[in-house]
Amino acid sequence: MSRSVNVAIIGSGVVGSAFLGQLKNLKHSIHFNVIYLAKSSEEALFSKSYDPVDLSTYATAPTQTPLSLDELVKYLKESAKPSILVDNTSSVAIADFYPTFIKEGISIATPNKKAFSSDISVWNEIFKNAELPGSGLVYHEATVGAALPIIGPLKDLITTGDKVEKIEGIFSGTLSYIFNEFSTSEKSDVKFSDVVKVAKKLGYTEPDPRDDLNGLDVARKVTILARISGLEVKSPTSFPVDSLIPKQLEGIQSANEFLEKLPEYDSEIQKVKDEAFAEGKVLRFIGQVDVKDNKVSVGIGKYAFDHPFASLKGSDNVVSIKTQRYVNPLIIQGAGAGAEITAHGVLADTIKIAERIAN
Amino acid sequence: MSRSVNVAIIGSGVVGSAFLGQLKNLKHSIHFNVIYLAKSSEEALFSKSYDPVDLSTYATAPTQTPLSLDELVKYLKESAKPSILVDNTSSVAIADFYPTFIKEGISIATPNKKAFSSDISVWNEIFKNAELPGSGLVYHEATVGAALPIIGPLKDLITTGDKVEKIEGIFSGTLSYIFNEFSTSEKSDVKFSDVVKVAKKLGYTEPDPRDDLNGLDVARKVTILARISGLEVKSPTSFPVDSLIPKQLEGIQSANEFLEKLPEYDSEIQKVKDEAFAEGKVLRFIGQVDVKDNKVSVGIGKYAFDHPFASLKGSDNVVSIKTQRYVNPLIIQGAGAGAEITAHGVLADTIKIAERIAN
Ligand SMILES: NC(=O)c1ccc[n+]([C@@H]2O[C@H](COP(=O)([O-])OP(=O)(O)OC[C@H]3O[C@@H](n4cnc5c(N)ncnc54)[C@H](OP(=O)(O)O)[C@@H]3O)[C@@H](O)[C@H]2O)c1
Ligand SMILES: NC(=O)c1ccc[n+]([C@@H]2O[C@H](COP(=O)([O-])OP(=O)(O)OC[C@H]3O[C@@H](n4cnc5c(N)ncnc54)[C@H](OP(=O)(O)O)[C@@H]3O)[C@@H](O)[C@H]2O)c1
Repeated sequence: MSRSVNVAIIGSGVVGSAFLGQLKNLKHSIHFNVIYLAKSSEEALFSKSYDPVDLSTYATAPTQTPLSLDELVKYLKESAKPSILVDNTSSVAIADFYPTFIKEGISIATPNKKAFSSDISVWNEIFKNAELPGSGLVYHEATVGAALPIIGPLKDLITTGDKVEKIEGIFSGTLSYIFNEFSTSEKSDVKFSDVVKVAKKLGYTEPDPRDDLNGLDVARKVTILARISGLEVKSPTSFPVDSLIPKQLEGIQSANEFLEKLPEYDSEIQKVKDEAFAEGKVLRFIGQVDVKDNKVSVGIGKYAFDHPFASLKGSDNVVSIKTQRYVNPLIIQGAGAGAEITAHGVLADTIKIAERIAN
Repeated sequence: MSRSVNVAIIGSGVVGSAFLGQLKNLKHSIHFNVIYLAKSSEEALFSKSYDPVDLSTYATAPTQTPLSLDELVKYLKESAKPSILVDNTSSVAIADFYPTFIKEGISIATPNKKAFSSDISVWNEIFKNAELPGSGLVYHEATVGAALPIIGPLKDLITTGDKVEKIEGIFSGTLSYIFNEFSTSEKSDVKFSDVVKVAKKLGYTEPDPRDDLNGLDVARKVTILARISGLEVKSPTSFPVDSLIPKQLEGIQSANEFLEKLPEYDSEIQKVKDEAFAEGKVLRFIGQVDVKDNKVSVGIGKYAFDHPFASLKGSDNVVSIKTQRYVNPLIIQGAGAGAEITAHGVLADTIKIAERIAN
């Protein structure tokens, strides 16, 4: 008889709906039995008798009020099969519940950074619980660089005895686009504020671009990589993060007013760019983990025209991992966001978990 | 009680001995019980009672004649635990036996390309048998680019529904070094034959450099990637491979005589290099898989100075994977050979298998 797992899915937004599409079309010897789907915080599909949710009609099928997280744990534990929780939200409340899910033997696949990049206590509880007998597994490749193979290979290196020395990378698609346009190996006079406006128009930024420019999303990703590499990072605000938002514009209420005033500060960043250009370098917004010196930081870095970070295209992410074994760093580059790409990172993790726990 | 697997290891050469060192130091919740170690074709360590081989004394411990492959299957099947065969040789005989191991429920982790890049019948038998109930698993990340995360992520993409369009890459550390030195974005008059001689002196080439220059090793790696991507490649000699050995020097007996005569042919490749330079391009020795056009090839390619392949360093490998989802390709770059690096690729695979089958 073929093996199977139960799957509970929360969220059907950008990533969640792409995930559901890919899962529907998946061909695999293991059967993925979706017994719970919370489309949103208001609407869920599930039944007391654990009937599988039909992924071809979920969008229009009648819904119920979602279970509380406590109820969900109970529901999954009482199902006859090992279960995987797929969290396709950015919810802190769900993230804070991971230690409980894991302790109760429920595995987790997720692109949600919150649990791994908030206070170190949550991280410690997750990975302490994951070592208990009968506990669930945790896969979160898509929390850094979407489906780019970063977290898995990094963990493989460390498990097999390598020592990470330095990680640096461009971890924000938005800021990658903005700097790739703003600072190039060809002389250009394009203004920083204009590039930000175009990025917003193209839908590359958050509704309020300051949510990208403040560097917090990058800080969260760097926190995750630093912790995997063995550094005890207390929180994503416990190390230097150079925000791209001019101090004077931090208090401004509306995104539009912010964008109107941003040109007044173009000259500052232009000067940094011109100085770099004179040295044969471009600016990039990077995150850095220096394991030897126990230092983590986020901000603008300068890279020679022939450095891999300088030739980055579009909104690609890139990470460079220098270890005892990889003296020339291991470099991984490609799209670090997008519905289908992020969803397949989560689905690949879901499959890897299923291959370990299905029965 | 903690889970465990039985492990049988064949080969203790460059990769094999690094593997044994890493396995000895491995800390993992699963216990890896080495019940068979064939140090070479002559000497093995094992016992009828399945006593674990002591990895701190294997180099000097008394040995026996290795088991035949038939006997090894029987020995592993009769052990009380699920087993993993780690093949750290380049043996064709062992490779040809993979389908049997797999059918008998024994899993395989290996950097040995032979089984995956020879006649398509072996490939088909391996992966047909791997679908039988109770069969063994096959992991072979280190057969292309050593431990670079290529095969795993490529399989993840395909399983989750992506379509590969084009793969191209530099898959030979030796030829990477030779072309990175020979053809640069700065004008240089270094001779091809001189670079080959330096590469040999540095120990970067096979004892006979023609075993690198003939392109067969690259053809084998490209065969593997093409097959994973869905192309039915009959064999590594069933598609165009542009050898770097001048036709007239193919028949020459000794490597030394070959190296003496090679300078007579410098002008041909120099011309190609100068033409490329005039177009702002460098030469690289690449393998290509064009899935749309069902074409596989190996030979010299030209890349613009700002292309990632142009800024490659040392003897690094690089692969670029363009898919329906990765419109800008996914690029993975880093060392593609070396004892510790290759060994950790094999060990990471061994661990992944163990995490699925240990009991
Ligand atoms: N989009 C990308 O390219 C990308 C890339 C990498 C990682 N990620 C990560 O992937 C996750 C999802 O991103 P997204 O772009 O898909 O976000 P999104 O479009 O905002 O979708 C989030 C979904 O989660 C639902 N949700 C939130 N809290 C819930 C709860 N308590 N119970 C049930 N449903 C809940 C939301 O419904 P309600 O509105 O009803 O709350 C919504 O359907 C985030 O953690 C994000 O950081 C995204
Ligand atoms: N070295 C690298 O950087 C690298 C990188 C990627 C992949 N690989 C692959 O890794 C594999 C091992 O490479 P290597 O560099 O370690 O080669 P190596 O140094 O030549 O070692 C091969 C070992 O296998 C043993 N062996 C061969 N046939 C055997 C048999 N039938 N029974 C028992 N032992 C046998 C050899 O012993 P005998 O001499 O007694 O036969 C030797 O100890 C190859 O498939 C290679 O292509 C290597």
